[in-house]
Amino acid sequence: MNLLLLEDADFVGEDRVRLSGRRLKHLHEVHRAEAGDRLRVGRLGGLMGEGRLMALDAEHAELQVSLDQAPPAKLPLTLVLALPRPKMLKRVLQTVSAMGVPRLVLVNSYRVEKSFWQTPFLEAEAIREQLILGLEQARDTVLPDVSIEKRFKPFVEDRLPALATGTLGLIGHPGDYPACPRAVQEPVTLAIGPEGGWIPYEVDLLRQAAGLQPVQLGERILRVETAVPALLARLF
Amino acid sequence: MNLLLLEDADFVGEDRVRLSGRRLKHLHEVHRAEAGDRLRVGRLGGLMGEGRLMALDAEHAELQVSLDQAPPAKLPLTLVLALPRPKMLKRVLQTVSAMGVPRLVLVNSYRVEKSFWQTPFLEAEAIREQLILGLEQARDTVLPDVSIEKRFKPFVEDRLPALATGTLGLIGHPGDYPACPRAVQEPVTLAIGPEGGWIPYEVDLLRQAAGLQPVQLGERILRVETAVPALLARLF
Repeated sequence: MNLLLLEDADFVGEDRVRLSGRRLKHLHEVHRAEAGDRLRVGRLGGLMGEGRLMALDAEHAELQVSLDQAPPAKLPLTLVLALPRPKMLKRVLQTVSAMGVPRLVLVNSYRVEKSFWQTPFLEAEAIREQLILGLEQARDTVLPDVSIEKRFKPFVEDRLPALATGTLGLIGHPGDYPACPRAVQEPVTLAIGPEGGWIPYEVDLLRQAAGLQPVQLGERILRVETAVPALLARLF
Repeated sequence: MNLLLLEDADFVGEDRVRLSGRRLKHLHEVHRAEAGDRLRVGRLGGLMGEGRLMALDAEHAELQVSLDQAPPAKLPLTLVLALPRPKMLKRVLQTVSAMGVPRLVLVNSYRVEKSFWQTPFLEAEAIREQLILGLEQARDTVLPDVSIEKRFKPFVEDRLPALATGTLGLIGHPGDYPACPRAVQEPVTLAIGPEGGWIPYEVDLLRQAAGLQPVQLGERILRVETAVPALLARLF
């Protein structure tokens, strides 16, 4: 936790917050914080700054905060991701949030196992928990927008074209395709497939309905949780 | 497992292998393989090609293999990594192997918790197991060379200079430093710190003793397992 993230409900005064639960535990066990310590803080959806720990015991921590810095810029990106397996989903949500992806669409694909859709990690509260961990890691305050599309075809035909309009539309896909571009200056829509990749029908639909073009990162097949940071670091 | 990796001990004839254990289980449970199936195979440290499944039962699989393709090129990189926490170490070893890092040095740092050095995941057999998973993921046959340096200063002063000679020496380090270069053409020595980063003394020693220069990836603080693929994808 490189940033102590504050929610509206934590505020007991204009510049005063009171914490308990996970963040209090973290202050005690990881930061080994004491009254008087100064910590980086941020208000969820708002500014970042400094908090001074006024009091701390087993039940609560109280901080006086001063918030005056804007959070870091987001990437100009919509990421369309075939739903990863549950354990990987958790880590990918943290990565997406930490790297500054503002919009994530989790979508079905032929090679997504049906059971993945049953995971409790897809519940809104569980998704939010992982996104918050990513913000705390990277020092950001603004939650990405995550949407879930359980049907590939209607999403790609009916909603993706509007999302992709005016962007560079790319499909991360191993094969005989152009290399993924570097340091692009324009907004990007990037579709990353499941373990095993998109099937040809899906690549065709992403191309034809939404104008996305396949690009590759070399002959090595990467896990989704590796491909995501690799593609984003190369693109931006 | 995108490549069935064969070891010398698997060969029962010049082009004939016999498998049991983990890989047999994977053939049954994930590939749902049947006699006659063709699979991508590679010989550890050697060539890649195709295997035809001649027989398969609960005890063994037998394949006839034809090996004629070189494995993919490695990155021109020596990666010096502060020892991550054990769970992350496992994933990072897979990533390093999958992305084609030929040489990894796991090193101590002030912010590496002492307990991390006690993990059984640092035993040679455990490291090898994770590296193999990375090779199977990415379709490569050549194990990276992993060395362990439990003392930072003697490593950086006595051995790192020779490793870094003739390479672009970089320290991945958040802060007011030049941006990490892109698409470099020369060999690189890259040092990535622990969670919390290198301490100033360590950065100074990496600079002065071995000529490495700090570079940054932006103001977001990334977990080590995200920073590794992000830095590699940007550099190469």
